[in-house]
Amino acid sequence: MPRFPHLSSRLERLTGSVFEKFLPKMRQKGGDLVRLHIGDSYLPPTYPLPLADEFMQKHPFFNRYGNTLGVEELRAALAEKVRRDNRLPVSPDHIMPTAGACNALNISAAGLLDPGEEALVLTPAWPFFFGMVKAADGLPVEVPFYTRLYENPQLDIFSYLEQFISPRTAALYLNTPNNPSGKVLNRAQLQQICDFAREHRLWLISDEAYDGMVFDGREHLSAAAFPEMFPQTLSVFTFSKVYMFAGLRLGYLVAEHPVLKNLNKLMVHQLYSPSPLAQYLMVAPVKTRREWSAAFVEHCRELRDLVTQNLRVPHHTPEGTYFTFFSIRGCLNGREYWEVIDQCLDAGVSVAPGNDFGKDYGDYIRICFAGESPGRLNIALERLNRVLAGR
Amino acid sequence: MPRFPHLSSRLERLTGSVFEKFLPKMRQKGGDLVRLHIGDSYLPPTYPLPLADEFMQKHPFFNRYGNTLGVEELRAALAEKVRRDNRLPVSPDHIMPTAGACNALNISAAGLLDPGEEALVLTPAWPFFFGMVKAADGLPVEVPFYTRLYENPQLDIFSYLEQFISPRTAALYLNTPNNPSGKVLNRAQLQQICDFAREHRLWLISDEAYDGMVFDGREHLSAAAFPEMFPQTLSVFTFSKVYMFAGLRLGYLVAEHPVLKNLNKLMVHQLYSPSPLAQYLMVAPVKTRREWSAAFVEHCRELRDLVTQNLRVPHHTPEGTYFTFFSIRGCLNGREYWEVIDQCLDAGVSVAPGNDFGKDYGDYIRICFAGESPGRLNIALERLNRVLAGR
Repeated sequence: MPRFPHLSSRLERLTGSVFEKFLPKMRQKGGDLVRLHIGDSYLPPTYPLPLADEFMQKHPFFNRYGNTLGVEELRAALAEKVRRDNRLPVSPDHIMPTAGACNALNISAAGLLDPGEEALVLTPAWPFFFGMVKAADGLPVEVPFYTRLYENPQLDIFSYLEQFISPRTAALYLNTPNNPSGKVLNRAQLQQICDFAREHRLWLISDEAYDGMVFDGREHLSAAAFPEMFPQTLSVFTFSKVYMFAGLRLGYLVAEHPVLKNLNKLMVHQLYSPSPLAQYLMVAPVKTRREWSAAFVEHCRELRDLVTQNLRVPHHTPEGTYFTFFSIRGCLNGREYWEVIDQCLDAGVSVAPGNDFGKDYGDYIRICFAGESPGRLNIALERLNRVLAGR
Repeated sequence: MPRFPHLSSRLERLTGSVFEKFLPKMRQKGGDLVRLHIGDSYLPPTYPLPLADEFMQKHPFFNRYGNTLGVEELRAALAEKVRRDNRLPVSPDHIMPTAGACNALNISAAGLLDPGEEALVLTPAWPFFFGMVKAADGLPVEVPFYTRLYENPQLDIFSYLEQFISPRTAALYLNTPNNPSGKVLNRAQLQQICDFAREHRLWLISDEAYDGMVFDGREHLSAAAFPEMFPQTLSVFTFSKVYMFAGLRLGYLVAEHPVLKNLNKLMVHQLYSPSPLAQYLMVAPVKTRREWSAAFVEHCRELRDLVTQNLRVPHHTPEGTYFTFFSIRGCLNGREYWEVIDQCLDAGVSVAPGNDFGKDYGDYIRICFAGESPGRLNIALERLNRVLAGR
């Protein structure tokens, strides 16, 4: 059984980079080694590129194949970030850049689950994770969770989770700050999840895409920072949220080095490596994050307040992320759920349907409050209030 | 059986983008629609980026999530390119950008093969393709091929391939210009492969990563341009070779639109989409390719000549790509193969071992002649000649 510390058997079928066995000797030879083994060209692109000369000079390998475990400069910057901000005991060897958090979650699911094994998915959850578990021939077991914590912050999480476990459970998928509910787990809540995972030897897949996007003085806590949890946890981060750069398709996975090396075998067969250009682009923003990130989070908090003040439907105040997630059952007035979604579109506002986030949320909708300017968000809220009121 | 026109059954387990069902109505609403359904931020990154202002103004969505089927400007530019240069009957709907050719080949293998099915792999072949077939629970069946064509250009390909087919064969993997042998298939050779695929209703996976990298007046031919072959072929291209930008991790898949939409389900679960930034960056280079690409190919031809003139080991003259692939059996003089590879490293030159390209090539090595400057390539050739001569 591939419960912690075992990985999925599919990894045994795959080999890593074909050049890996030569790396120690190649490193030892250094600059004298003439590298004829890789299929790449020594020239920078000979057509114009809209990149600053200074950047290309500083990172002359921006256009080349890079180490599939990540470019050194970014791993070093991220190790410093993860140590300080997330309090994880890491070196650059514990960091692997990926093609977004999406790719990190995919290789985590495929690398942990053998066919027929189950992953507990705390819901509401990011829709694609269910498909990733299924693509790995696993079974997602939905555990309605974050919305319950709004109603009952004292929920006995350990006992609650035990209702969902089976002899085939291999992993637990956790997401704080939570998309779509905006829930941010506190220390006591996260501690119980960690205790549960340790007790049952489950791998934790800790999706921290909204790392740092927390409001009202809250703190984002990383599960892997809890005692004994680092070896048992795959922590997933992204540049798509606080870094405002979804178009980069860059994220990173934090775990023990042997785990990363194994999951890397899946990644190299999917896409070789995430973009070295993207990785070099993010070295400076990681280092300067304290200079700019707080203002963005504060702006999201303002947008959150705009929603909580103007949305005329009962909803919980999001504690983090840029989402609000609420039931519209009380607004249907005889209409079908999908009819209302369609009426929203007709009124000129698109919302995400709740059932994508878990089967218990068929009468919910999710709205993102950071994807449009405050002016347009206000227009959307007026339209939404009108449709939901049935006017 | 998922032979042409059937795709693999794993696709049935996956859903595509959760927003897809709303796209027609969303398009119809246009700019008036306030988009609260997607998790993105409306601001450009608030930290400095080394990107030209003009570029960011021209492509204001460079930092946002994009259509997972690809950004419109790039698909339009590529459709024009594929129509003209590859002579395929395409519109932008037949183009899907991917995270390199690697990702396109991965989703092709996973999207075509059901567990236990076989893919004929013409060898020597790009090493990762074997792993992709295995990752899809398929079986790669190696067909020694490109090296034989150097020895016998008149090989009866149709009859030869028939020796390798079984009732479980679902696809044929083809790569011209070929990495690692440098072989470029001519019209008669490619015609026989197409006839064979049509006769046996096999999907063709046509890896054209070295599209356009052909020497001495040769022409690169695309299998999908042959009569009746377009619907049966997945054509794979990249920006890593002629575009000199492996660090972008961008490629594209060309196929019938319904096939692309199905394979897209695999891609969105692996990485959502390839980088929109990368896609926008390549719009102009695709349009201006006639201005700069010939000079690069000519430079590669010069480097090829440098190798064929100075390498003191029997080898065939590469017809395309930037690789030479040759047996060193005659140079061993009592040494083990791996001893010689190690001696190359000790002498300061790294080569790619032949057995990674197919089990028939255990005594071959591949060298890339474009990855280092001409000066360093010359040094490497001297070192290689010395080691192979046993001096």
